[in-house]
Amino acid sequence: MDGAAAPLITPLRLDAGALHRSATHPDADAMTFLNEIMARYPDAISFAPGAPHESFFGGIDIAALVDRFVTYLRESRRLDEQAVRRTLYQYGPSRGIIVDLLAAALAHDLGMPVDERSLVVTVGAQEGLLLTLRVLCGGADTVAVVDPSHVGITGAARLLDLPVVGIPDHGDGPDLGRLRAACAAHRVRVLYVAPDYANPGGTRMSLTARHELLAAADELDLLLVEDGAYAFTAGPDDLPPLKALDTAGRVVHVGTFAKIGVPGARVGYVLADQPVAGGGVLADALCTVKSMLTVNTSPIGQAVIGGLILQHDGSLRALARAKATLYRRNLTHLLGALRRHVGAPAGRTDGVTWNEPDGGFFVRMRLPVEADPALLERSAGQYGVLWTPMRAYYVGDGGARELRLACSYLSPGEIDEGAARLARLLTDVCPDR
Amino acid sequence: MDGAAAPLITPLRLDAGALHRSATHPDADAMTFLNEIMARYPDAISFAPGAPHESFFGGIDIAALVDRFVTYLRESRRLDEQAVRRTLYQYGPSRGIIVDLLAAALAHDLGMPVDERSLVVTVGAQEGLLLTLRVLCGGADTVAVVDPSHVGITGAARLLDLPVVGIPDHGDGPDLGRLRAACAAHRVRVLYVAPDYANPGGTRMSLTARHELLAAADELDLLLVEDGAYAFTAGPDDLPPLKALDTAGRVVHVGTFAKIGVPGARVGYVLADQPVAGGGVLADALCTVKSMLTVNTSPIGQAVIGGLILQHDGSLRALARAKATLYRRNLTHLLGALRRHVGAPAGRTDGVTWNEPDGGFFVRMRLPVEADPALLERSAGQYGVLWTPMRAYYVGDGGARELRLACSYLSPGEIDEGAARLARLLTDVCPDR
Repeated sequence: MDGAAAPLITPLRLDAGALHRSATHPDADAMTFLNEIMARYPDAISFAPGAPHESFFGGIDIAALVDRFVTYLRESRRLDEQAVRRTLYQYGPSRGIIVDLLAAALAHDLGMPVDERSLVVTVGAQEGLLLTLRVLCGGADTVAVVDPSHVGITGAARLLDLPVVGIPDHGDGPDLGRLRAACAAHRVRVLYVAPDYANPGGTRMSLTARHELLAAADELDLLLVEDGAYAFTAGPDDLPPLKALDTAGRVVHVGTFAKIGVPGARVGYVLADQPVAGGGVLADALCTVKSMLTVNTSPIGQAVIGGLILQHDGSLRALARAKATLYRRNLTHLLGALRRHVGAPAGRTDGVTWNEPDGGFFVRMRLPVEADPALLERSAGQYGVLWTPMRAYYVGDGGARELRLACSYLSPGEIDEGAARLARLLTDVCPDR
Repeated sequence: MDGAAAPLITPLRLDAGALHRSATHPDADAMTFLNEIMARYPDAISFAPGAPHESFFGGIDIAALVDRFVTYLRESRRLDEQAVRRTLYQYGPSRGIIVDLLAAALAHDLGMPVDERSLVVTVGAQEGLLLTLRVLCGGADTVAVVDPSHVGITGAARLLDLPVVGIPDHGDGPDLGRLRAACAAHRVRVLYVAPDYANPGGTRMSLTARHELLAAADELDLLLVEDGAYAFTAGPDDLPPLKALDTAGRVVHVGTFAKIGVPGARVGYVLADQPVAGGGVLADALCTVKSMLTVNTSPIGQAVIGGLILQHDGSLRALARAKATLYRRNLTHLLGALRRHVGAPAGRTDGVTWNEPDGGFFVRMRLPVEADPALLERSAGQYGVLWTPMRAYYVGDGGARELRLACSYLSPGEIDEGAARLARLLTDVCPDR
């Protein structure tokens, strides 16, 4: 105390422990680490991001897409110029401004009736997942998720302070015995599932498994939250989504235009047609909650997606076609490169195995050693190849020795070289047993 | 049981009571009723929506704005064409892609240093409010809000299951005695306040009240969530926002481009520069949670806003100038029309009074009778004029005899005619005492 007066006001410094756990969860650290290591090794070939291939971006013309949608507003909805401008630039309905196009496209592609009042347009699938959990789950409810799962669903549950129980994926969807046990132990109202080439596991549910899951949902009084992000990558043998098989109203279907359209539009949707006693359907409740979350999805972003749908004759399937072809080519190429460089999945003697999905963006590889941040750092620094540790995708304690390889973002040449680098890493760190 | 087999599966029908309370709250009903009555009486003059004036929409050219931002990406950020396309169309950082422009604009306009790492671009101010509450408040925390308040903040709290306590607005900001009492009774970590022409009350805090509130926040260990949506409508006597006076790091500032830019871009921001022990600032935590809410704000929408900022020499104040002029004209016109048609606020003998703010979109009127849905219905059907009942804006039991008049959306002629219609209603329903 040498004469200097203490400041009257102490500048605030927040304690990390005082922040909500969704802001400081280790999963966020894992993703930060991944982004940081990608930035530090820009020349490494990265199997990490499940991001859309950028070759499609060259063909995007925002002005032309918005114009296409504006022509539709004028000609089909008979809007005058003032109403057109209001639709694009003013606040708009929480439900969205392209639900008519979307309902027609889904009805056409899935061969089922879809009422536009059952739809809500969301800021990507992520907002759709969060809205669905919020409307259906209260403080006493546990969210069941297929395990491993997309971090978006576990993150959304954490944001809402909802506990999560993982239902192991047995390779053909969630293990129904484990689901029944979870429902006996907890109050479970929803199960999140991605039946088509799930991120991160790459598995696809068979038609039989889909029917069995729907029957189990009815038996257990569950709603299924279906994430359909990767279904479009199926080839001619595509299977109907759970929603198209859903005679009992057990499925809420969440979709996105990030993969088949433009990620930067940030447009997804939820199809929630369950009637609510007293009037309306579940989508109405989602709209109400959305008005407190983001108010409405940017109509400019919606106009871009609306223009894309119109350009492809009102069909999401048509919109997705060229992209599906590229991703299937990349996946086939990755699986071939792994066989050439790493060996046959069952033929290695060191315990390295991987699945061989026939669609989606992802291959799951199991190692005899931990696929942890230290191995990733070594892989990047010494071998010039990056991948995603699977640990953060598990609710349970699985995944410590698993990694995810995404092929969506790369060229065939990069996939080849990346597989060769990965093979060198594996040879060095996974000695023969 | 006349031989027909019961269906094995009963189509699901959800009980409204099983949905989260944020989906079925009476406030949502009040807003639905307002929208519904506006649709039923399309020829009524509506003082209800606080929406931006549509005369500005004619000048919006999305392609030109995006081009302006693209030129900036090429010339100032030195991005090549592939990187430009990636910035606009690919998934992007949760923080946003215009934080540099935004930081420079805020620093210029407010005369204070603003680090772009203290900013996060949000899907409108609404997502910013929700993120801020989520990061700062857990289950044991009560959210304090100035009462009456924008329904966005009370809705966000409800969505997160956080209890809310209202701190009455005594005409010069929140009553500090009531704030101290609330902090003694509850664990309060944040107070929401809109110092400049608050929605719905129209009040503005004096400079003295701002300093006193900042000192109280420090004394009570609170963070102030400042909503700056209407500050731009101040004339030459504008006052600094709380954030510009905040020497102790007590203010999180939430802003929006809906009023000064384009609502349809759905772009807002949060300035949260509080250091967090262990590294980083509060904005980093907001980014982490945003990645689980909307992932990122549409870069196409951000490009539109970035283009607008660049077109106005990097100044939000310049961007807002023409709009501020129109809204001040409309407000002056409304206040004049009320004096002409309804009388002087203090001169009526029937108990009808109203405030006369010098900025913002809103006038608050007090009646001697209930301003309830029945009166609104009568006002619309018999008098052809609409307004917003204030009840839904109150946390406490206030507002039953208050209504809000918004002037932002109307022309001077509509304002005149609307005030005349309102005067006829008031004369008929508020007899002299």
